[in-house]
Amino acid sequence: MNFKGKSIISFRDLKKDEIEYILKKTYEVKNNKYPDALRGKTLASLFFEPSTRTRLSFDSAISLLGGKYFGIADPSSSSIQKGETLKDSIKTVCGYCDAIVIRHPYEGAARAASEVSSKPVINAGDGANQHPTQTLLDLYTIKEQFGKIDGLNIGLMGDLKYGRTAHSLSMALSYYNVKITLISPKLLRIPIDFKNYLEGSGIKFVETSSIEEVGQDLDVLYVTRIQKERFGDLQEYEKVAGSYKITEETMGVLNPKVKIMHPLPRLDEIDPSIDKLENAIYFEQAHNGIPVRQAILGLVTGAIQ
Amino acid sequence: MNFKGKSIISFRDLKKDEIEYILKKTYEVKNNKYPDALRGKTLASLFFEPSTRTRLSFDSAISLLGGKYFGIADPSSSSIQKGETLKDSIKTVCGYCDAIVIRHPYEGAARAASEVSSKPVINAGDGANQHPTQTLLDLYTIKEQFGKIDGLNIGLMGDLKYGRTAHSLSMALSYYNVKITLISPKLLRIPIDFKNYLEGSGIKFVETSSIEEVGQDLDVLYVTRIQKERFGDLQEYEKVAGSYKITEETMGVLNPKVKIMHPLPRLDEIDPSIDKLENAIYFEQAHNGIPVRQAILGLVTGAIQ
Amino acid sequence: MNFKGKSIISFRDLKKDEIEYILKKTYEVKNNKYPDALRGKTLASLFFEPSTRTRLSFDSAISLLGGKYFGIADPSSSSIQKGETLKDSIKTVCGYCDAIVIRHPYEGAARAASEVSSKPVINAGDGANQHPTQTLLDLYTIKEQFGKIDGLNIGLMGDLKYGRTAHSLSMALSYYNVKITLISPKLLRIPIDFKNYLEGSGIKFVETSSIEEVGQDLDVLYVTRIQKERFGDLQEYEKVAGSYKITEETMGVLNPKVKIMHPLPRLDEIDPSIDKLENAIYFEQAHNGIPVRQAILGLVTGAIQ
Repeated sequence: MNFKGKSIISFRDLKKDEIEYILKKTYEVKNNKYPDALRGKTLASLFFEPSTRTRLSFDSAISLLGGKYFGIADPSSSSIQKGETLKDSIKTVCGYCDAIVIRHPYEGAARAASEVSSKPVINAGDGANQHPTQTLLDLYTIKEQFGKIDGLNIGLMGDLKYGRTAHSLSMALSYYNVKITLISPKLLRIPIDFKNYLEGSGIKFVETSSIEEVGQDLDVLYVTRIQKERFGDLQEYEKVAGSYKITEETMGVLNPKVKIMHPLPRLDEIDPSIDKLENAIYFEQAHNGIPVRQAILGLVTGAIQ
Repeated sequence: MNFKGKSIISFRDLKKDEIEYILKKTYEVKNNKYPDALRGKTLASLFFEPSTRTRLSFDSAISLLGGKYFGIADPSSSSIQKGETLKDSIKTVCGYCDAIVIRHPYEGAARAASEVSSKPVINAGDGANQHPTQTLLDLYTIKEQFGKIDGLNIGLMGDLKYGRTAHSLSMALSYYNVKITLISPKLLRIPIDFKNYLEGSGIKFVETSSIEEVGQDLDVLYVTRIQKERFGDLQEYEKVAGSYKITEETMGVLNPKVKIMHPLPRLDEIDPSIDKLENAIYFEQAHNGIPVRQAILGLVTGAIQ
Repeated sequence: MNFKGKSIISFRDLKKDEIEYILKKTYEVKNNKYPDALRGKTLASLFFEPSTRTRLSFDSAISLLGGKYFGIADPSSSSIQKGETLKDSIKTVCGYCDAIVIRHPYEGAARAASEVSSKPVINAGDGANQHPTQTLLDLYTIKEQFGKIDGLNIGLMGDLKYGRTAHSLSMALSYYNVKITLISPKLLRIPIDFKNYLEGSGIKFVETSSIEEVGQDLDVLYVTRIQKERFGDLQEYEKVAGSYKITEETMGVLNPKVKIMHPLPRLDEIDPSIDKLENAIYFEQAHNGIPVRQAILGLVTGAIQ
């Protein structure tokens, strides 16, 4: 499978065998099969919108495999965005790097960049679109924990209406033979078009407002944040949000072997007392961002095949 | 020719044989004669004024030849400028790098830095002064396209009154046996002292307001931006600026083989439809910033001789 | 002595033999005994508060020994601090680096970080606490100049009430057989608890308001800034501050062989005319920040033993 020169813009561009190939390479990278694979490769790391976590993850991913990066960390004082079109910036920068990672506030910016770039472009988030490396590291983490994805019952809990991480992951999971359990307040149910997509894909899924009802059957519980801003009434928010937090009490209604995931950063969706439990795998999940990004950078630059 | 330890502050400090030597080394660097030449070299990249384009260019120049950089990308939150004099900052930083690249809002700052630094200083722009690497990459690009500079008819179009890029380039061209065609609205003609300089150097030049009159004879057309702020009357600006834009229509009055250059970033001086033409070489020009800067960094650190 | 995995949070955690070991390793690093010792090591450089000087020093320290860094230079636009706890940030970042350097506005932040990090944490300043690498480079500089610390008469001048650099250094010096001469306006005398500490340690020290009285006997004069804000009355400040500045006139009352130190940056505490004298060693002192930090990074990552 040849990824060399290929841009990674949306998860939806990837076919199942491509996803599986990236996950396989991630496993090899994590097991140190390609030390120094990115030596001599230079990444342009263009963050037109602050995102420390994702930026540090890409920057260290290339550094740890021997490569280098340069770029924009803080766009506010950057002359590159004053007046010049994004396309001109990309046409210039692609002349002196091996790959571009871009984060941009406008939807479609990453794809626009990939259309004019002579080097592969990796989307690290553009406006309302999710960035594909998050979903890949989510899938990788599930596979790493269970040795498989097929056959699992995966709960997605929290804001399923606006939560892009949950949307992308549910679509990615529809490639597999899983059961998806959607747990959210009524106000924040998954949108109808995503539901139609899941139905069309033939995947099994259930919707509920109650973690108590379904907790015992879950293999994975993927928690996302419920934002205050979604509620007109603050009191209603307080009442609702409390029901979707993971505390030691919540653990009592869950499958004792459930693995709890979270895209991070968390605010108070998961109580810090949970961190020490074997169920908590969200930091391992975050750390998997490195090998996933290393595998992708290696594949698109041709350093890993 | 020994550049080791030499600071590069102003184009005017360079003699013709030094310029030619830098251009020759740039050619060799671009043709990969010195891979990894900067391994073990560390650049201090001090941008006391934002300039993403120039900064990225220097940072990637050293990275691509195996070296490293550290420095200041965004001066706004930098403690280095609070109270401490620039000279103290430079005296400190020069203790732990092999060369300093500096951009500073105050004219003369780069030269002041070079006076106290124990390591070579490269001016990446200081206030009203032009940075010499821009002019060197302009010259290199012309030579790369035509195999020579002598004998060419080079048009400089746009704001010739305030445009520092055009001033530096015209002075540099006066070392060569070229014809310079100066194309600008009357309001933005080249200042009298530059004109005197060109006359004194014995170079051929003509002034005109009309690209139609001279377009057929040009080998190169170097376009610079006309800034709105130069005009008291916005309507006059609109009228004038339109006559100095490159569109498909303008191409009709130009020598079909003309090469169009621009220091970038552009706003609307060149229509994007021009980009695909063979005449458009402004992105190649921008990309030449890398080997020019690599050659200079190699020369002043002694890594390239 | 095994520093591998050990965090360096406060100077007070270090025993005398550990300090001596770090100083010995600094000497070896400075004499190039460990070229490229940090190759393959990656530093997370997390500056949650701007400090260009310290940041550049750490970043170049690791670069010059072949290692890499990534991190946060400007926290203002950093998403890492929005809502997420420092502990969560550290738990994530420690998954992809070999050591963490942290600067944070809150006292205790560095220690909190070290408690959750799986990798060694080096304190580069946290609120009211001093950073230990400053004191180590001060000690190293004294030892480098005199071949020893024992037996010297070391003057600390300026703001001894609030000046944390002076507090840390005086405590560190109490490990040695030195005489400490404390020179400050009455308003800015060293706090009683530090005085008790020095008395308890059996060290000889004197207090005075007059540099004239003691100048002839000093081997080292360590100057710190007197901040305007400490005085209610600006006129009083002007009068007092003038007496604690080093000018050519002051030099007349000092031991001709005295070495003048300053943690930098200086404002006007030392007149620039002093810089050229052999007495002035504050830039050498600043440059010693590199080998000290390299030695520490090497020791805590296990790259240097």
